[in-house]
Amino acid sequence: MIKVVLIGSGNVASHLIQSLKNNNSIDLVQVYTRSKKSLENKIDTTKITTEFSSLKEADIYIIAVSDKVIEDVSNQIPFSNKLVVHTSGTMDYKIMNPKNKRGVFYPLQTFSKNKEIHMQSVPFCLETENEEDYNVLEILAKNLSKLVYKIDGKQRKSLHISAVFVSNFVNHIYHIGHELCKKNNVPFAILQPLIEETANKIKTLTPLQAQTGPAIRNDENIIEQHLEALQNTTYKDLYQKLTLSIQHAKKL
Amino acid sequence: MIKVVLIGSGNVASHLIQSLKNNNSIDLVQVYTRSKKSLENKIDTTKITTEFSSLKEADIYIIAVSDKVIEDVSNQIPFSNKLVVHTSGTMDYKIMNPKNKRGVFYPLQTFSKNKEIHMQSVPFCLETENEEDYNVLEILAKNLSKLVYKIDGKQRKSLHISAVFVSNFVNHIYHIGHELCKKNNVPFAILQPLIEETANKIKTLTPLQAQTGPAIRNDENIIEQHLEALQNTTYKDLYQKLTLSIQHAKKL
Repeated sequence: MIKVVLIGSGNVASHLIQSLKNNNSIDLVQVYTRSKKSLENKIDTTKITTEFSSLKEADIYIIAVSDKVIEDVSNQIPFSNKLVVHTSGTMDYKIMNPKNKRGVFYPLQTFSKNKEIHMQSVPFCLETENEEDYNVLEILAKNLSKLVYKIDGKQRKSLHISAVFVSNFVNHIYHIGHELCKKNNVPFAILQPLIEETANKIKTLTPLQAQTGPAIRNDENIIEQHLEALQNTTYKDLYQKLTLSIQHAKKL
Repeated sequence: MIKVVLIGSGNVASHLIQSLKNNNSIDLVQVYTRSKKSLENKIDTTKITTEFSSLKEADIYIIAVSDKVIEDVSNQIPFSNKLVVHTSGTMDYKIMNPKNKRGVFYPLQTFSKNKEIHMQSVPFCLETENEEDYNVLEILAKNLSKLVYKIDGKQRKSLHISAVFVSNFVNHIYHIGHELCKKNNVPFAILQPLIEETANKIKTLTPLQAQTGPAIRNDENIIEQHLEALQNTTYKDLYQKLTLSIQHAKKL
């Protein structure tokens, strides 16, 4: 059994705790959090510590905290020569204290408090400072998920930018659709099958092949009608920019 | 059995033909197309006509052509007092010739040639000029799909704008993710679970509740790193605009 200590209590940490504690091949030895309350009902309280000095021995320490405090947390781990990994899409493993063997354990998914995640389908992007540490990190990841990738720092940073586009920005565009529906007394649920099909389509077509709509058809008449109907200047601006970008991509 | 004549051979028409001809409660009497070749292998050739003067009698005529030619096609139908509907998200039924009873039969989905559609899950937005025609249009729609809505012209136009956002623009953002992956030698497939989860999340959370990422966290450090890494000026501009729009929506 791989012994794991997890540090953190945010969205990523909470979802990881849920998966780690239910896994028969993993021993979640301990979780560090600043306030015990943040992990109430999520794990046996005897496994929680609020003191770095009380951290127990483990095979892997997972630092699942916000980017800004990864470095500081890594300095507080009272051990050396242990495998310590963070879960950030952006930060280099080198920001962590070199007294330990470092790596990255990046789950590429959107985690929210009130939404369960099927961890077996979350892609894990792994990187280790030393080749010989990769195996144990991979065993841990493969116990949690079917989708495990060896991804270097440069690739991971670019994946994170792509993730911001295809998840955070896409979700915000759903929000714009939601607002427009609310304003016009149409149930947002009508759009759900379209949203699902748009996401599914690109499993078999490239997004370029899958593109439909007035922009790609150069349907200036519809585009003008839509711009006229949009009163929110931000939405109007985004409509114009995205339309031009679709038309530009078509020409390349 | 409802007798249907379909006019058109594009993406929407092709998918409708597929569903209509396989439905035991519907008699697809005839399909009009300008060139027989466009419907090769899609329907028994004896059912195809290229002459409006040869159009047969039916209960419903579905005009599934591009917005610009709906009016002209409606003028060519050699009958009067029939139920004639178009499939456009934007056009008023009043653009069609008033010699017939008019309506709208708008399937709210993204249709591409090489991608099958499960028609039972396509929302149909219906509207009829005369109340008494609604029933037969509804029966037709309910034979094709589980999701049938009565939607007036104003609502439909707003739904179409929302659909451009949540489907056409979202797909283009997938394209941006695809391009970034290609450029950085990362398989785009790694992003698929994230794309699916982002689409699924909003079944149980509002898009505002579901929002994650550097913009909503006001993580200026990451945002700056991402902007610096993005070389394409269009992508950089969209990144900035969408980030500001997310931050603005949070404050409302």
